[in-house]
Amino acid sequence: MLSREDNALLTRVDRGTPMGDTLRRYWIPALLGWELPEPDCPPVRVRLLGEDLVAFRDTQGRIGLLDELCPHRRASLFFGRNEECGLRCVYHGWKYDVDGRCVDMMNEPDADSFKEKIFTTAYPTVELGGIVWAYLGPPERRPAPPAFAWLQIPATHRQVSKVIQETNWVQGLEGGIDTSHAPILHRLLTMETTRPGFKPDNPFVRGKPPTLAVDVTDYGYQYAGIRTLDEARIHVRTYHYIMPFHQIRPSRSESGVPLVAGHTWVPIDDENTMVYNWEYSTTDAPLTADDRLERRLGNGPLDVDQTTFRSKRNRRNNYLLDRRVQKTESFTGIDGINVQDRAIQESMGPIVDRSREHLGPADRAVIQARRLLLEAVRTVAEGGTPRGIEPTYATLAAAESVLPRDADWRQASLPAGSQIEQTV
Amino acid sequence: MLSREDNALLTRVDRGTPMGDTLRRYWIPALLGWELPEPDCPPVRVRLLGEDLVAFRDTQGRIGLLDELCPHRRASLFFGRNEECGLRCVYHGWKYDVDGRCVDMMNEPDADSFKEKIFTTAYPTVELGGIVWAYLGPPERRPAPPAFAWLQIPATHRQVSKVIQETNWVQGLEGGIDTSHAPILHRLLTMETTRPGFKPDNPFVRGKPPTLAVDVTDYGYQYAGIRTLDEARIHVRTYHYIMPFHQIRPSRSESGVPLVAGHTWVPIDDENTMVYNWEYSTTDAPLTADDRLERRLGNGPLDVDQTTFRSKRNRRNNYLLDRRVQKTESFTGIDGINVQDRAIQESMGPIVDRSREHLGPADRAVIQARRLLLEAVRTVAEGGTPRGIEPTYATLAAAESVLPRDADWRQASLPAGSQIEQTV
Amino acid sequence: MLSREDNALLTRVDRGTPMGDTLRRYWIPALLGWELPEPDCPPVRVRLLGEDLVAFRDTQGRIGLLDELCPHRRASLFFGRNEECGLRCVYHGWKYDVDGRCVDMMNEPDADSFKEKIFTTAYPTVELGGIVWAYLGPPERRPAPPAFAWLQIPATHRQVSKVIQETNWVQGLEGGIDTSHAPILHRLLTMETTRPGFKPDNPFVRGKPPTLAVDVTDYGYQYAGIRTLDEARIHVRTYHYIMPFHQIRPSRSESGVPLVAGHTWVPIDDENTMVYNWEYSTTDAPLTADDRLERRLGNGPLDVDQTTFRSKRNRRNNYLLDRRVQKTESFTGIDGINVQDRAIQESMGPIVDRSREHLGPADRAVIQARRLLLEAVRTVAEGGTPRGIEPTYATLAAAESVLPRDADWRQASLPAGSQIEQTV
Repeated sequence: MLSREDNALLTRVDRGTPMGDTLRRYWIPALLGWELPEPDCPPVRVRLLGEDLVAFRDTQGRIGLLDELCPHRRASLFFGRNEECGLRCVYHGWKYDVDGRCVDMMNEPDADSFKEKIFTTAYPTVELGGIVWAYLGPPERRPAPPAFAWLQIPATHRQVSKVIQETNWVQGLEGGIDTSHAPILHRLLTMETTRPGFKPDNPFVRGKPPTLAVDVTDYGYQYAGIRTLDEARIHVRTYHYIMPFHQIRPSRSESGVPLVAGHTWVPIDDENTMVYNWEYSTTDAPLTADDRLERRLGNGPLDVDQTTFRSKRNRRNNYLLDRRVQKTESFTGIDGINVQDRAIQESMGPIVDRSREHLGPADRAVIQARRLLLEAVRTVAEGGTPRGIEPTYATLAAAESVLPRDADWRQASLPAGSQIEQTV
Repeated sequence: MLSREDNALLTRVDRGTPMGDTLRRYWIPALLGWELPEPDCPPVRVRLLGEDLVAFRDTQGRIGLLDELCPHRRASLFFGRNEECGLRCVYHGWKYDVDGRCVDMMNEPDADSFKEKIFTTAYPTVELGGIVWAYLGPPERRPAPPAFAWLQIPATHRQVSKVIQETNWVQGLEGGIDTSHAPILHRLLTMETTRPGFKPDNPFVRGKPPTLAVDVTDYGYQYAGIRTLDEARIHVRTYHYIMPFHQIRPSRSESGVPLVAGHTWVPIDDENTMVYNWEYSTTDAPLTADDRLERRLGNGPLDVDQTTFRSKRNRRNNYLLDRRVQKTESFTGIDGINVQDRAIQESMGPIVDRSREHLGPADRAVIQARRLLLEAVRTVAEGGTPRGIEPTYATLAAAESVLPRDADWRQASLPAGSQIEQTV
Repeated sequence: MLSREDNALLTRVDRGTPMGDTLRRYWIPALLGWELPEPDCPPVRVRLLGEDLVAFRDTQGRIGLLDELCPHRRASLFFGRNEECGLRCVYHGWKYDVDGRCVDMMNEPDADSFKEKIFTTAYPTVELGGIVWAYLGPPERRPAPPAFAWLQIPATHRQVSKVIQETNWVQGLEGGIDTSHAPILHRLLTMETTRPGFKPDNPFVRGKPPTLAVDVTDYGYQYAGIRTLDEARIHVRTYHYIMPFHQIRPSRSESGVPLVAGHTWVPIDDENTMVYNWEYSTTDAPLTADDRLERRLGNGPLDVDQTTFRSKRNRRNNYLLDRRVQKTESFTGIDGINVQDRAIQESMGPIVDRSREHLGPADRAVIQARRLLLEAVRTVAEGGTPRGIEPTYATLAAAESVLPRDADWRQASLPAGSQIEQTV
């Protein structure tokens, strides 16, 4: 439970808000690389932290991310011409390079001296791991580019997609780091089904709920679900929350290849989130065309319109909930693991009222993430550097393993040098 | 004419508003019984007086009406599972019975003691006359269940339906108790038409407008349109307004069977109303399948989507107004008596500005209803019991009759013991 | 650049706002004459300066323009019956003549004395040049009817149409009087295209941008683009801005017939504008059926729904922008000269933030129009008569000509007696 004030503090992302300024200290996914397939291709609208922007790839392949509106008369550069190393407004022909400099004016008889005074907002970008990342913060605080392990994986072994969730970003994040819902929301009711989810024989589903451990570290926290299998053995599933909005979890492909996977919940604005989904093979085996359909999660091209990035199963059609299926096959009657997540998180409204919750011990990970986010806001307000900026997270993976009861799984899944500050 | 302040007082229904608190002292139709056709059937969303609720019929047939959002993390129970005497949230498996008690938790290793502390809002319900009625007020002021005569009629002789009107509830109510518009708005222009409405030879339409009498009683008022037929006889049509939002009127089936009919205007929220329509045969003859189509009124399954309860002829398509028909056949060019009513009432906007009206003697019933509603607000604020709660209305019917000029029609149509306090 | 305060002052048009009161001193286009094709035809909804009205043509052909809502109970007169010299509300049968007098009541037994006390808002109208003009200001300040030359042209030689632009009216007006965008936004990239726009060999497009001259006069201003062709000759294109929202420009039909054309940007409300488009032949040749399709501009029946007056190419479909065409044929990839204008002006948002512009010398006409509009607001506030009310503009046309370098084109294109107050 949070006060209404803390709830607003946590969720609002516009420039000038405390959380908005905090998020602007990190590199942020702005769009997928393939949305700008080649030099001088059409520009693309991007809405990020409540700011309307336009992205383009110039003649030399450099990526520009500019204020959507031309500083002259504020026409949209989405309608602009991407040509000869710049994006040109079609209204009066003012043209900007990727750094936001005005490099040409078509309407002024004496443009040369005037144009040197004109700049538009341009954010630095870097293209890594199939994603164009942007930095929207103060130039002097710009950190090194993101260094996640999954950004180093060859494209053959990595899959990245995105989908819009119609809620505030924290609501998405909380769903992602809340492991306790997984064996409930995603449960199947019968062995006789081909729908995605956890079948009755899954260790996740059988027996008591796992004990949840949350170990706070310099990048956010490691969290794990621990189950006692028998006198000698425990089953441990470890995940990582990397501030401010990244999750890493163990996964497995349709055909059983072990994967590391994760999500990043990027605020479009206060009430909408772009969820980036990634996964990579941890073996020599590349991902298959079928893996890239992401059918199990419901995040791929069969489920998400690849122009608008809106889910075909959405709140306007009740996620195609089938009450008969809900009676006999799956807990929700909705197909797609992440469709189920979006359904339930969107059902809370765009910004859930956290002053009216009733949290219990199983909500420990959610509670701790809020604490760390509010701590980060204070850190930034005091001029400091919040967790998750220094790339101590660079080698992080995630794993699911059966271990001897007294194994030190905690330290084993942390990067060298990372300390557990506190376990909650 | 009302002040803007009184208009707001009259129309606003959220919890904590004076009228909202007044309405919460009455039993209120929440949904139709058939929307929950059997035990453990799918739950249904209900919006009532601005509150988002979910209704379900449990394994034992009991009806629950709960806050739509789970008190744990505020996911919607509309997506819930109706199973084994409770509605279970699919997010973390918390389950509630019809009384709002949390009876199970799937995510907590030690749920037993925790769950006893968790309650959700649950409103008492009673199923009568094909309608599920709810009580949203203070438990200690809960009155006896509604006792309308029409709730006692066997289903074979009774028809109930519902339809959304896109206005505030008072606007709908005022249209219902305003008899003076009927021979105008619902008029036909020719004998040569099969469209519904009052033909030129109808006594309603011929001659001068009737004199309107309004007799205030302990349940609201009786109102009548009186026409002098000749030296010896008068024609009297009596109706009743039962507070806060019920109307009873005389009617007649397509085939001429005498009926008693009525509407109840239930606030969905400040700007939307669920209109319940009912009628019953006053003879031994049951209602026919054709009667149940409600074609004349435009309230049945041919005219109203039976999933969304939205009228097919609505303000987005100008109610399929046909200007040629308006020139030659009917006063409005719109088909369906109650479609005509909705068209005209919705055309005033969601909440009509009553500070800009010009009312005359023919608006007496409307004026008096407002007075009684504002009186009820004051009565409730002072801790009293407003009119229409005590079931003095239980035997009320409505009639249309030709009487000797000096007949005492007034007292004859009142229940034994009811006094006319005032005639306006 | 304007302050936010001046931007609000400039753009807001509701009754009681300074600009709203200023605009109400002028005759304003309310609808096209053909929308009311004959006596007693169906009434039409009109929204003008934020006021909801209804227009009708009575039995004698007179045009009424009334408050949409009946003063009795505020039902919409759009659903009314246009019959026997008045518009009758279908709710209770109150009827109004074109002057707003209540001439009949069907619901009151004693209507005769009551109805004389009832008036509704009725605005004077005049039908000129295919347009119904209305005056919404104080009766004692009503000016003579509009006297534009184009209103005197026979219908055979004149074309008038209208289309909704989803922006504030000033945004539309500024686009119209900003000549500097024309050879850029409307440019074609190749001689090998049949799309509308300016081809590479057009003098407009070749060479340097023209010098812009703005001559302030008693009706608004004359503005001209001047190009030096050679030592001896200049090319001059003159236009007029007639306050508050009229433009006159030289044009040419598809087949090369010289035309005078113009637009009038009428505020529907703060965020929507009805653009009236007119043109007339300046020779004996009448306009052809093909001319009336307005294909080049995208304003005719092929491009604009003639019931809703919404453009088929609009912001919801990105104006059917074709990026391949934008690469090879036209500057925008959007077809239709005025579709291009609407696209770019709507892309600024409903009310552009003029506090964040960067204007240059080529924006002189835009800057001067704002000054004159703000001056008009002050003039009206002080009780005076703003520019453009006295019909000194009556004989204005517009022309494109090649002239000797020292020709006095300035005074030549002004009406007799008009003085140039200032050239900017």
